[in-house]
Amino acid sequence: MRILLIGAAGRLGTAVEKTLADRGHEVVTVGRSTGRLRYDVADPEQVAALYGDPALYGGAGALDAVASAAGDVVYNPVADMAAGDYASSFRGKVLGQIELVRQGIAHVAERGSFTLITGVLGRDPIPTSSAAAMANGAVEGFVRAAAIDIAPQRINAVSPTVFTESLPHYGDFFPGVPPVGVMEVAQAYVRSIEGGQTGRVYELS
Amino acid sequence: MRILLIGAAGRLGTAVEKTLADRGHEVVTVGRSTGRLRYDVADPEQVAALYGDPALYGGAGALDAVASAAGDVVYNPVADMAAGDYASSFRGKVLGQIELVRQGIAHVAERGSFTLITGVLGRDPIPTSSAAAMANGAVEGFVRAAAIDIAPQRINAVSPTVFTESLPHYGDFFPGVPPVGVMEVAQAYVRSIEGGQTGRVYELS
Repeated sequence: MRILLIGAAGRLGTAVEKTLADRGHEVVTVGRSTGRLRYDVADPEQVAALYGDPALYGGAGALDAVASAAGDVVYNPVADMAAGDYASSFRGKVLGQIELVRQGIAHVAERGSFTLITGVLGRDPIPTSSAAAMANGAVEGFVRAAAIDIAPQRINAVSPTVFTESLPHYGDFFPGVPPVGVMEVAQAYVRSIEGGQTGRVYELS
Repeated sequence: MRILLIGAAGRLGTAVEKTLADRGHEVVTVGRSTGRLRYDVADPEQVAALYGDPALYGGAGALDAVASAAGDVVYNPVADMAAGDYASSFRGKVLGQIELVRQGIAHVAERGSFTLITGVLGRDPIPTSSAAAMANGAVEGFVRAAAIDIAPQRINAVSPTVFTESLPHYGDFFPGVPPVGVMEVAQAYVRSIEGGQTGRVYELS
């Protein structure tokens, strides 16, 4: 398959790219400052430019899948959040991924798929995570509903807990929480892209 | 208790106001074009003006509870959504309610509460509901996480399915879905405001 992967430079994106490439897929990587194509999908106009980029198609026709492994949100206690922090978190993790779908419908194969990233904090929050939880809940609600509208195209979300590989940096924020390895999370992308399900949130925790 | 109620003019808000007043609470109603105070809480600056309004306190000190029964979102198939429809739905149902909390922390009693409105579409979507599902998921994620940060203040969400009283207008969109009466939904506000729980999503369906 020909797969557009956003956020391929991150810890998870790197694992997803390797996993998909090892399975014989052609992965076109996109990032703000790394990747084959350079776009910031948090900006809806750059999403339009991305889907309009001739390099994306290269004679191979429609995309078979769009996969996202990126999203930025603000971490702070509710009382310390600034006026714009929830709106910027919405743009950074919700709107960009929604625009990949809304604008991508016309560029993805009839039975192609979208796979978005959320995370454990929507269901199991930690202190300072209200914007992350808001964003994850938003994406998961969108995925469940959008699946109805876009069929036979499919859409799923991958919702991992803290990565085993991130424990040295973030482990203290997740006391007692079992971590998940990024290669296991990457398998959820395979499941979403190569499988037949839609409207699912694959929880890895 | 002294309770700020946003959206008191709607079908649900009317039931919530009556229920709370019948239980002896002082309810200060807020709406865009009706209610004792006139503010559009979808605008963060009007939320600030609301909390700064001397009429809100009237010598009675801090608020004991803030309850929201309002939120506007766009309904359309994903492919027919316009560029700004998800952002306007975010402002209309998510950001306004979050700002009621973020800005309200300083104006609500130490053990006071916030009660926000979501809805069934976040978990059981229907066609055209991707913005509604996004908004409901966002508010529910926020509520679960914010509960940690704002304690001992409390926060819960009320998430009803289609109202029995709305079946003549909306029943066709919810085939086979058992409705709930607005007076039963109003009891979830009582439970949130007078009870001791926090971080809960009261699902009425």
